[in-house]
Amino acid sequence: MRRGGQLEQVELAFETWGELDAEHSNAVLIFTGLSPSAHASSSAADPSAGWWEDMVGPGRPVNTDHNFVVCFNSLGSCFGSTGPASINAASGQPYGLDFPVLSLEDIAHCGALILDHLQITQLRCAIGPSMGGMTALAFCLLYPQRARHLISISAASRALPFAIALRSLQREIICSDPDWHHGKYPQEEHPVTGMKLARKLGMISYRSALEWEHRFGRERVEQAGHTDYMFTAEFEIESYLSAHAAKFSGSFDPNCYLYLSRAMDLYDAADHGGSLRASFAHLQLQSALVIGVTTDILFPPHQQRELAGLLTDEGIDVSLQLLNSIQGHDSFLVDMDRFRPVMADYLCKLDSGSPCDQSY
Amino acid sequence: MRRGGQLEQVELAFETWGELDAEHSNAVLIFTGLSPSAHASSSAADPSAGWWEDMVGPGRPVNTDHNFVVCFNSLGSCFGSTGPASINAASGQPYGLDFPVLSLEDIAHCGALILDHLQITQLRCAIGPSMGGMTALAFCLLYPQRARHLISISAASRALPFAIALRSLQREIICSDPDWHHGKYPQEEHPVTGMKLARKLGMISYRSALEWEHRFGRERVEQAGHTDYMFTAEFEIESYLSAHAAKFSGSFDPNCYLYLSRAMDLYDAADHGGSLRASFAHLQLQSALVIGVTTDILFPPHQQRELAGLLTDEGIDVSLQLLNSIQGHDSFLVDMDRFRPVMADYLCKLDSGSPCDQSY
Repeated sequence: MRRGGQLEQVELAFETWGELDAEHSNAVLIFTGLSPSAHASSSAADPSAGWWEDMVGPGRPVNTDHNFVVCFNSLGSCFGSTGPASINAASGQPYGLDFPVLSLEDIAHCGALILDHLQITQLRCAIGPSMGGMTALAFCLLYPQRARHLISISAASRALPFAIALRSLQREIICSDPDWHHGKYPQEEHPVTGMKLARKLGMISYRSALEWEHRFGRERVEQAGHTDYMFTAEFEIESYLSAHAAKFSGSFDPNCYLYLSRAMDLYDAADHGGSLRASFAHLQLQSALVIGVTTDILFPPHQQRELAGLLTDEGIDVSLQLLNSIQGHDSFLVDMDRFRPVMADYLCKLDSGSPCDQSY
Repeated sequence: MRRGGQLEQVELAFETWGELDAEHSNAVLIFTGLSPSAHASSSAADPSAGWWEDMVGPGRPVNTDHNFVVCFNSLGSCFGSTGPASINAASGQPYGLDFPVLSLEDIAHCGALILDHLQITQLRCAIGPSMGGMTALAFCLLYPQRARHLISISAASRALPFAIALRSLQREIICSDPDWHHGKYPQEEHPVTGMKLARKLGMISYRSALEWEHRFGRERVEQAGHTDYMFTAEFEIESYLSAHAAKFSGSFDPNCYLYLSRAMDLYDAADHGGSLRASFAHLQLQSALVIGVTTDILFPPHQQRELAGLLTDEGIDVSLQLLNSIQGHDSFLVDMDRFRPVMADYLCKLDSGSPCDQSY
């Protein structure tokens, strides 16, 4: 592991879509955000909708008719890949806090291991939204010859203090839940309250004030006032957050969340060379697409401009797209009408050398 | 109380500076934000620095050489005025959650009671930052003849869902602390963890990402890594938040915090007339100064423009000042070099009818 310690054995869950061509030249690797699994899109093997169903598939922007698309569950996560919730063979118990400190570079390294396994020397394109964008950049810095193109979506070259503050507080909220038990909670008794509160804070940072003003305004929930005290949900926005929190808290392992969250804080592309500029000098990308959203408070527009500028300074052909989505950081998951054409335009040119012949 | 219930007896703590003139025409009333006491500035009776020391005093922008300045501790707070931490005569115990639902209009009403007590019929100016700005507006709507001028600072005509979401989460964090005991915690054993976490979230919403990027960047704390697990403070921003949280959590009563916080959510100037426009038609102000800050995410610039527009539509002479402070919502407490001249310019004209003869 980049920051010390080692894992004796690692399992990595990945899914693929489309066919690898004879030259092994059409592979696309998707690095995920903090919480998704490898199931980016439906397939014959698993027909359930993926977390990026509208983006990945036949005839979709990440077009599986022309590309061999791979997505994997991050190291440190809990959907098939080894993480703090996995059993430590040495103890027969979940790793918990015995899991070594996780870096995004460790996740990027796992991406390279999967490519080795699939006999893919070089990707057509590394793609990553959010944490996945930072990990995709880490991958290109660690393995400069293993990707020709990069799509960074609502990500950045490093974590800044506002985002660190939010994530740090989320972690502290989880660790303050008595049910966390210093990471040794039983699997059937998660620190659910802490996870719900942390998820609400997550939602506050993932969306935007503007979206909520349009969507909820000061609307009240129907049952407002029918509760036993005044601090339960009265406004629609409060009920919306509760619904999202309930959905998440049962599905994600708290220790995995802590490790992945901290890995985002720790990430700084400057670590690969002493400065951002020195690090970026390693890159051998032909082109890059940098997408950001004007209402994103976690990875704000100036970080998108910085990233695009750093890439451009290395002679890489960069397209910077700052989209006016109102859904903030989460826009890449929900504002598909804005994201699809931008992704498709860039990827069509990589696939065929010419613009798309259909609209997305 | 506006939303039902009543208090048999109310104590209100207030302080005054300067002399009331013979016509009782030079009074200025300051409504505070959520957490301050009545001690806005030092005085002979209490020489300790006040929370707005640089703004209020002889020769300062709120000039006590020319004005009789009054500041009071809000109803529902815990610095001398009656609130949830006060003893309920009916039970001999603190009110706790038996305190009736608090509205900013109730606090505004207390301002009027203090003016009655001081034999002040009409204020020269009602001033309020943050929650105090909303309360000052509520005062002008409830008592249209009792103020000639209004200064609203980083406030708004109503709470929007992003701010409600943040405050709602702060309250839920406090109520999730097992030491809260449904509001029946002993005075010597506050839910300190919940208060600290809520305060950290407060600080995240009170300052700005830009300020922290300049101030902290990715600086590490000196002792980083010397702790027993990886989720303690490693970055300066984390240590800064902890220091602020520790300072606050011992000084403010948790139930008071809950009530005042909810009162801000509930506030909507439209309640005074069925719509914002109909409510504002009640106003009889001669002029108003609306100050906002471009980096404020709690009371963003568009709410400042909305407030200024609503006042202008009623024929009130409005000055709108959107300041480029980088300290976000808290700027009125820290960016004094920007705030002092704006406040002084407006107030000098009220005092003397002409611009300031000194610089601030």
